[in-house]
Amino acid sequence: MPSREDVLRDLVIGNRILSNEGIVDAYGHISARNPDASDRFFLSWSLAPQFVDTGDLVEFDLQGNAVDGDTRPPYLERFIHAAIYEARPDVQAVVHAHAEDTLPFGIAATPLVPVIHSGAFIGGEVPVWDIADEFGDNTNLLVTNVDQGRSLARRLDAGNVVLMRGHGFAAAAASIIEVVRMSIYLPRNARAQINGLRLGQIKPLSAGEIAARTGGSGYRPDSPETQRAWRYWAVRAGCGDMLGE
Amino acid sequence: MPSREDVLRDLVIGNRILSNEGIVDAYGHISARNPDASDRFFLSWSLAPQFVDTGDLVEFDLQGNAVDGDTRPPYLERFIHAAIYEARPDVQAVVHAHAEDTLPFGIAATPLVPVIHSGAFIGGEVPVWDIADEFGDNTNLLVTNVDQGRSLARRLDAGNVVLMRGHGFAAAAASIIEVVRMSIYLPRNARAQINGLRLGQIKPLSAGEIAARTGGSGYRPDSPETQRAWRYWAVRAGCGDMLGE
Amino acid sequence: MPSREDVLRDLVIGNRILSNEGIVDAYGHISARNPDASDRFFLSWSLAPQFVDTGDLVEFDLQGNAVDGDTRPPYLERFIHAAIYEARPDVQAVVHAHAEDTLPFGIAATPLVPVIHSGAFIGGEVPVWDIADEFGDNTNLLVTNVDQGRSLARRLDAGNVVLMRGHGFAAAAASIIEVVRMSIYLPRNARAQINGLRLGQIKPLSAGEIAARTGGSGYRPDSPETQRAWRYWAVRAGCGDMLGE
Amino acid sequence: MPSREDVLRDLVIGNRILSNEGIVDAYGHISARNPDASDRFFLSWSLAPQFVDTGDLVEFDLQGNAVDGDTRPPYLERFIHAAIYEARPDVQAVVHAHAEDTLPFGIAATPLVPVIHSGAFIGGEVPVWDIADEFGDNTNLLVTNVDQGRSLARRLDAGNVVLMRGHGFAAAAASIIEVVRMSIYLPRNARAQINGLRLGQIKPLSAGEIAARTGGSGYRPDSPETQRAWRYWAVRAGCGDMLGE
Repeated sequence: MPSREDVLRDLVIGNRILSNEGIVDAYGHISARNPDASDRFFLSWSLAPQFVDTGDLVEFDLQGNAVDGDTRPPYLERFIHAAIYEARPDVQAVVHAHAEDTLPFGIAATPLVPVIHSGAFIGGEVPVWDIADEFGDNTNLLVTNVDQGRSLARRLDAGNVVLMRGHGFAAAAASIIEVVRMSIYLPRNARAQINGLRLGQIKPLSAGEIAARTGGSGYRPDSPETQRAWRYWAVRAGCGDMLGE
Repeated sequence: MPSREDVLRDLVIGNRILSNEGIVDAYGHISARNPDASDRFFLSWSLAPQFVDTGDLVEFDLQGNAVDGDTRPPYLERFIHAAIYEARPDVQAVVHAHAEDTLPFGIAATPLVPVIHSGAFIGGEVPVWDIADEFGDNTNLLVTNVDQGRSLARRLDAGNVVLMRGHGFAAAAASIIEVVRMSIYLPRNARAQINGLRLGQIKPLSAGEIAARTGGSGYRPDSPETQRAWRYWAVRAGCGDMLGE
Repeated sequence: MPSREDVLRDLVIGNRILSNEGIVDAYGHISARNPDASDRFFLSWSLAPQFVDTGDLVEFDLQGNAVDGDTRPPYLERFIHAAIYEARPDVQAVVHAHAEDTLPFGIAATPLVPVIHSGAFIGGEVPVWDIADEFGDNTNLLVTNVDQGRSLARRLDAGNVVLMRGHGFAAAAASIIEVVRMSIYLPRNARAQINGLRLGQIKPLSAGEIAARTGGSGYRPDSPETQRAWRYWAVRAGCGDMLGE
Repeated sequence: MPSREDVLRDLVIGNRILSNEGIVDAYGHISARNPDASDRFFLSWSLAPQFVDTGDLVEFDLQGNAVDGDTRPPYLERFIHAAIYEARPDVQAVVHAHAEDTLPFGIAATPLVPVIHSGAFIGGEVPVWDIADEFGDNTNLLVTNVDQGRSLARRLDAGNVVLMRGHGFAAAAASIIEVVRMSIYLPRNARAQINGLRLGQIKPLSAGEIAARTGGSGYRPDSPETQRAWRYWAVRAGCGDMLGE
């Protein structure tokens, strides 16, 4: 289990990486569970991820309320994070973003499936959560309360990613590094699939391949392969100096 | 109502943002109504938006004539702005641009519709103005006089965006921030729609969702969410120092 | 008629612009006719356009031989330029490039046509020159002698652009500024067309519109509109300081 | 035959070029055979190619074991390189990468073929190696042992490129410059083909054209044309200073 300090540092780096890699712009956010209090999580106040520093991280409870009375305006959609942490004790980090190339799969009937090895974390057909199913067709599409967050978390179920119709996606993982990697390769997998479909029938990853990549020894946040990518993205995002030795 | 100083500063920032985000290149322009004289508007002389500074902004009347005898060459298409301000007292800012991913919808039969939450401002099917309908098929496609501007404004009607066949689009909003945001997310919505169509039938936003996002409390230029994006775009465009505190 | 000095300066700027805008990489080149000797033209020796400076420009005759015995290795395909200057006294500048988004139209049956106002210079259906038609299917696809150059020039005929099957395009114009502008907007027009075709039947520019944009008063290299773009591209390419006052 | 010093220098430059041109990110790698020992090759330890310097290059034998006991973690997929050098005495350099636009052709039925002159090295239909054919559908898709490497090398056969289903490609050539050039133009050829297919039937290069470009005098690593590109890419990648005179 990483320390609170590790988590806060990696969360800043994760904010910068997601912005630099084009996964978020001024909108979209990443959070991490407090390693010392499983019913709390850290998330920036309403700031573009590119600008987030340690002092911008606010601690929230699972109802989406700031702990310790922080009064800076929060992200409207902090309930996405709160509800996923509530429903999924295994999840330590959450991303919500509008990464452009995931959007087509949120508005059309063809399901997004893993077609490349770096997309294996998807774990099969990615569910689409349509806010209109449960909350009617007069919402502003944002997840702005606990009920909507819980509905989204139910659609995510035990998976790692859920698409949000006309809006974006939410991804959940056991560490900050993993959820960042997932968020970067998700649109790449989407592009490979949509372009592959232009060439005829496609062959997605098999269940066995997905299991081999994601299960047991398939992926470790501390492996040289994972750390290699983390350093690469961090340096590109201009925060290589924040990395530990 | 912002002051004249606010408007001029934000108009410079808007020019730089639109250029940096790839919405305009050397062509395309943004204007704002004079808050102290509703029959006047500010627009740069014939300069690429990336280079526009306060001293480049010229005041025009609603016939597209420079006030105070400014003799620098104006944009040929200033009539787009003049006519929209004339027809629409609610409009405080106008953009005309050729953002590439909007162009396919200006030459084909499939209408552009809002499919993502940030595209909600479109407000339903976006009309296409074909200059040939009223002015014949021997024009140079540019809006170079008051009559053509008024024709375009009629097609815009009470909406926020109108596509121009074989040319680009015009967008109108109640503030500079809003018209910039609209211009940035319009091509993104277009890409999401065109790629969604490759995956089968698509589900656009409902009328209720559009209303919820654009009506009443749906969108405020001074909200933390909107200011967050404005700062993000301004810093990326290299003019973060022009922002107020 | 510009001076020899003007031409050499603009040719350097044109090289840098085409590289910076992604029209050429290490391959592709731009030339200009010698204003003092209509049977000579200037073209860099075998150098990536990004690096071309005045001292790199070599004078060639219309057989593609370096004048004054310059022994630096020339571009293999200088015959494209030589043959077009020979066949077309009206042409003062030529570009050959492999701009990626023009390539699909060089290998498929659908003709490239002007669909946006900035693509009007195309002048109707763009011809495709297939080297195999006249020289068999054992060539290396390059235009490496006078005969092949003349064949290409015949296919260009009185037009402004010709696609080269499996290879790229050649563009010809009355000035350096015009041929650069054409080379930049050609792939943009290609993208608008190919994406428009995904949305159903498309409406290209009419013959009258093309004439209005390209004929008589339609386009002048010294107009504020044209100079605006030239300065914009030059500054982006890092050679704004080379521009005259 | 280049010296060991030449090879090490060019391998560092090749790493930086492939990263800067977007062919590799943190994943993917390039190797070169030891010119003094044909059963050895140089490859970085597990580092993102952008960061590779001479001191990071490790010497491996054809079983994928580090020579001289280097204990830094190696790339998991070094067996791709080992097996190709073992099977192909003519090969001096190998790239493995996940360049995004090659991925669609690795999951769909339409074969990748050369359609542009810079794609001629492909040499006809590019084979797709599906790890599941020989190793079942429970692998993690990576080439992590000698047997898998040899299977891949058999599919490559006497060719220059092999696609890997759901994963990427491997390319092999007679020099570092050639394998880098191939890796850069492979995705470009893929994009030209996939976009050409949107415009109807396409005409690929003929067998004679491929032979003319790749055989005999068709391509020489020391030609001015090839050196021109090498310098261009190296300067863009920030390591122009490493080039010899």
